[in-house]
Amino acid sequence: MSNRSCLTIILAAGEGTRMKSALPKVLHKVAGLEMLGHVIKSARSSGSDEIALVLGHGADRVSAAADSLGAGTAISTFLQQKQLGTADAVLAARPALEKKFDDILVLFGDAPLIRPEALGDMRMALAQGAQVAVMGFRTQTPHGYGRLLEDGGALVGIREEKDCSDEQRRITFCNGGAMALSGAHALELLHQIGNDNAKGEYYLTDIVAIAAAAGLDVRAVEADEEDALGVNNRAELARAETIWQNRRREELMLAGVTMLAPDSVYLAHDTEIGADAVIEPNVFFGPGVKVAEGALIRAFSHLEDAHVATGAQVGPYARLRPGAKVMENAKIGNFCEIKKSRIGEGAKVPHLSYVGDADVGAGANIGAGTITCNYDGFGKHRTEIGDNAFVGTNSSLVAPIRIGAGAYVASGSVVTQDVPDDALAFGRARQSTREGRGRQLRERLRKLAGK
Amino acid sequence: MSNRSCLTIILAAGEGTRMKSALPKVLHKVAGLEMLGHVIKSARSSGSDEIALVLGHGADRVSAAADSLGAGTAISTFLQQKQLGTADAVLAARPALEKKFDDILVLFGDAPLIRPEALGDMRMALAQGAQVAVMGFRTQTPHGYGRLLEDGGALVGIREEKDCSDEQRRITFCNGGAMALSGAHALELLHQIGNDNAKGEYYLTDIVAIAAAAGLDVRAVEADEEDALGVNNRAELARAETIWQNRRREELMLAGVTMLAPDSVYLAHDTEIGADAVIEPNVFFGPGVKVAEGALIRAFSHLEDAHVATGAQVGPYARLRPGAKVMENAKIGNFCEIKKSRIGEGAKVPHLSYVGDADVGAGANIGAGTITCNYDGFGKHRTEIGDNAFVGTNSSLVAPIRIGAGAYVASGSVVTQDVPDDALAFGRARQSTREGRGRQLRERLRKLAGK
Amino acid sequence: MSNRSCLTIILAAGEGTRMKSALPKVLHKVAGLEMLGHVIKSARSSGSDEIALVLGHGADRVSAAADSLGAGTAISTFLQQKQLGTADAVLAARPALEKKFDDILVLFGDAPLIRPEALGDMRMALAQGAQVAVMGFRTQTPHGYGRLLEDGGALVGIREEKDCSDEQRRITFCNGGAMALSGAHALELLHQIGNDNAKGEYYLTDIVAIAAAAGLDVRAVEADEEDALGVNNRAELARAETIWQNRRREELMLAGVTMLAPDSVYLAHDTEIGADAVIEPNVFFGPGVKVAEGALIRAFSHLEDAHVATGAQVGPYARLRPGAKVMENAKIGNFCEIKKSRIGEGAKVPHLSYVGDADVGAGANIGAGTITCNYDGFGKHRTEIGDNAFVGTNSSLVAPIRIGAGAYVASGSVVTQDVPDDALAFGRARQSTREGRGRQLRERLRKLAGK
Repeated sequence: MSNRSCLTIILAAGEGTRMKSALPKVLHKVAGLEMLGHVIKSARSSGSDEIALVLGHGADRVSAAADSLGAGTAISTFLQQKQLGTADAVLAARPALEKKFDDILVLFGDAPLIRPEALGDMRMALAQGAQVAVMGFRTQTPHGYGRLLEDGGALVGIREEKDCSDEQRRITFCNGGAMALSGAHALELLHQIGNDNAKGEYYLTDIVAIAAAAGLDVRAVEADEEDALGVNNRAELARAETIWQNRRREELMLAGVTMLAPDSVYLAHDTEIGADAVIEPNVFFGPGVKVAEGALIRAFSHLEDAHVATGAQVGPYARLRPGAKVMENAKIGNFCEIKKSRIGEGAKVPHLSYVGDADVGAGANIGAGTITCNYDGFGKHRTEIGDNAFVGTNSSLVAPIRIGAGAYVASGSVVTQDVPDDALAFGRARQSTREGRGRQLRERLRKLAGK
Repeated sequence: MSNRSCLTIILAAGEGTRMKSALPKVLHKVAGLEMLGHVIKSARSSGSDEIALVLGHGADRVSAAADSLGAGTAISTFLQQKQLGTADAVLAARPALEKKFDDILVLFGDAPLIRPEALGDMRMALAQGAQVAVMGFRTQTPHGYGRLLEDGGALVGIREEKDCSDEQRRITFCNGGAMALSGAHALELLHQIGNDNAKGEYYLTDIVAIAAAAGLDVRAVEADEEDALGVNNRAELARAETIWQNRRREELMLAGVTMLAPDSVYLAHDTEIGADAVIEPNVFFGPGVKVAEGALIRAFSHLEDAHVATGAQVGPYARLRPGAKVMENAKIGNFCEIKKSRIGEGAKVPHLSYVGDADVGAGANIGAGTITCNYDGFGKHRTEIGDNAFVGTNSSLVAPIRIGAGAYVASGSVVTQDVPDDALAFGRARQSTREGRGRQLRERLRKLAGK
Repeated sequence: MSNRSCLTIILAAGEGTRMKSALPKVLHKVAGLEMLGHVIKSARSSGSDEIALVLGHGADRVSAAADSLGAGTAISTFLQQKQLGTADAVLAARPALEKKFDDILVLFGDAPLIRPEALGDMRMALAQGAQVAVMGFRTQTPHGYGRLLEDGGALVGIREEKDCSDEQRRITFCNGGAMALSGAHALELLHQIGNDNAKGEYYLTDIVAIAAAAGLDVRAVEADEEDALGVNNRAELARAETIWQNRRREELMLAGVTMLAPDSVYLAHDTEIGADAVIEPNVFFGPGVKVAEGALIRAFSHLEDAHVATGAQVGPYARLRPGAKVMENAKIGNFCEIKKSRIGEGAKVPHLSYVGDADVGAGANIGAGTITCNYDGFGKHRTEIGDNAFVGTNSSLVAPIRIGAGAYVASGSVVTQDVPDDALAFGRARQSTREGRGRQLRERLRKLAGK
């Protein structure tokens, strides 16, 4: 297929009122990526050379988002002035259509689950001689879907459920929405679509009967029902999310990742996990996470834009925020938050700590309750902790600060000045103990409380 | 229907031995509300004027609970002395029955999923002329349920599975338990029910055949199978909970709430969430929570009796306890616990803090590890933090205390005296550093540990 | 059955390439126990006297693991030199077979869900006269399974799907893998199995036709499809885990444990929970946990090798690590970690604390942010806290240390010396406040940040 040029037209003009949202529908996310982003990604993966985005409602916001989603593929945008139907929407991209691509894919911005494989199958049909290829799916519950009408293997029409005869209503092969058109025929066929129907709209699905009547080669290409899922409200959005998650979980498990309770692991669109890594229940992956082979991500962990190296352990209850790098055999324990910090080989941050804007050396041990005071209300400052340093519990490291290699910080210290290598720093008061005064205090407090 | 008076009799006398619990069955909870509370709520929503509660096992505890559940509707309680069957139980409420209500609803305290719509449909049947209306449901797996015997649209009997002929066993329309009786006929019909059966009990279901034989208008009113679910053990309790949760999740999503993984969001019976709010995976809502439009509740958050305003962010790993109010654009971060405290507009409590019995001013910043010392072993005391105050990390604020507007508290301070507006407070020791002593300490500790 | 001796042969020699793992397949875990451990446990529970383990790939690691899994039952290991089929594998255990046990069970190390009941049913068939009993299961989706061929109640063969006639392919009674052989006949039958097939392997399933042809009594014994589940990749491992979890959740609920969202509770193979205990959503149990009657485990808790007594409350967000003992009515709150410590009756560790290697007395109150400094970089040291002691917030207790009964530790103290009973200890600096300096600091920081 690589020698056939391809334009993908993505329809993203709809209002999406049933989403009940201020956000344009196609910008709602699945696995941390906008639905439109999924469709663009799929088009790119299947070898599309150019993408034409047809916009309408919320065009400005969608257009702005598309800029960052395109990465590497040319995306042009076209405005559909009025919502006159799907065929009208496709024709809004006429300048792109006129560039004479071999293949034209027409996809929907609110159908995020379409896989590159399904697109490849449709383009294959064109390569084999079809002028129109429609994605279809088989289902035991076809109610509500348009039915694909076939005649001896050829596709001759798409009929909406309400227009079906009783016999047609029993057809279980349904219209999946996506379509591939021969670039040589697309414009001519699109122009033949009329609007002589109840709503006065131009329906893309009419192209099938028109092409069939003209004696062209029109085919249905079977895909999974899931590929065709369109999202019209947030319950359907959640359903798309679940399907996406299940697909990706299965992929990762078959590639050698252990998940004790895959249903409780939430993955992002770009989560990468190596073989023999173990993911315990209830782990959340935001975008940008890479977990190396053999790493252990314990229960209730939350990772975003972070890297975890081989042999490292994270969690339970660990939060890796953007820019966290946990190196080989390092360990981040419970109720710890790591942000924009590198935790060196074999270093440990085991309990109740916040490490932000820091560089923690190999083999260092960060005591429970240690906090890097990286923010003064206005700016952020860095903390540097040397190899094998030992920071006592409940310490506050006031950045910018450097704790030297092999240095010790006593428990409960506030450290405001650099500590040289191998030095010992105290920043705490000496203990004073008063015999019997605990009892007196208790009696006084009890009386005050009237107990 | 509003012009017809209605009495709802709720049967709540059963022992519930299969629950294996010291707690009476109807007091087990679904979505944080006692099962009995769900039934009362449904009766109230469908316009019931009075509720008669028939008690038996654990009558004292159930009666005490009912007081708080009734809120706004008159609830009277009646004791069923011996467990002589469901008709006997209904007759225990005879004083209420004698008040001549137009409609009598008979419901079960262990069937918490019955919706007001189903009750309305049964009362509608009475309004249209029926004297007896029985809630039925259709199922492909009727095994174990009583079957509804119909004759030309009229209901003529309810037959237990064990008494069914082979043909009757194939009936898929089943008895859903709930019933509506015409107030004018109820007592007379109930008195005709006999106990000539194996167990010698008086069965309410016999009323159907009696009424039909008397030429009265008896109808089945179709509801969902879920409306009829009765709870007899904790596995069924969990099933009821799941159904309830799924219903409510769907409602919220269709109303514009985004849930990335709805199955992992646990809602309470009264959780309110505004449109365009986003609920990440693994969020627990206890009773009394309101989340405003556009708020963000991040993963692993836990909220009870708390309010979150528009634009606010909560979590991940944030716990809002009763009395927490997070105002517009405020932010509660990870491993933070907020109790009986107001967090002002745009204020931030980002990490590892406990804020209890406090009032945090707008724009204030509470450093990581800050703790309000609100408890002295006997009484609780309040902390007040002014607008735009900055509290350094690992600070202890010993209440009662006031940190003024614009004041600074240095990292690691113990604050025991009020800090005036715009003042700077220190409560920490100065750092002292000893060169080379870290290495010496390490060697000594290593020897002590024999390593 | 107790008077019949039994040998169980477990086949655990396979490579498991589809697991894509450095770990031998049978050592992958379900519910925190190796799959092989589940099979051994089931064999033991059904009264097996001796276990023969047939090893091949990863024999050393599997053998080492088996030592700790056998607990109480004699386990001998045998090496299958080459992978020449299942019958060859069984014959690798010939020395064990020659000991003339009454019953021989042949099980698979990668089929961890087989229940003792299913094994008992097979042995019962032998006791009733059968020489060969094969575990079968009925399924609506038999595709891929070997079919059980019966003739008038007797089992006459097992046919692989690819060798089935169209008619045989419609059989829904399938081979479940496990088998019971009469000890008196086993060796003779096994030796008759040939390798005249495409792969040149010796198939244990051939024993059925051989025994039937010899006029022996060969039976299929029906079990659940789940009992037969074999694990070949990690998606199947996750499926086995889900089935195991669902079985155990149901058991616990029927025994009187409340789970608000059972699907979100992860149990270990040996988790014990008493009646009327409540388990909120999202709780993780590692091995070795006992929760007493009426305890409350709140959401997002994580327990491993820990005990929780009656009336105790744990969580939300509490982590009990190995050796944690939470006594009657004690309370562990959010973001707390307890390790190798006893928390006495009615004691409270409510917020943000790490208590390790400690003994906390009855009625003691551990303030938020308190940390036991139990580790000095080399050794671990113990902390002892007396009854009714009160430890102020953000305290660091430098172990080894003893806080006496009824003693008070002031908030923010670093405690390095023992505190006598009823004494009051301070280890913090006095507060100093500088008027107006907060404002000056803010201006300076703002300028530095260029804001």
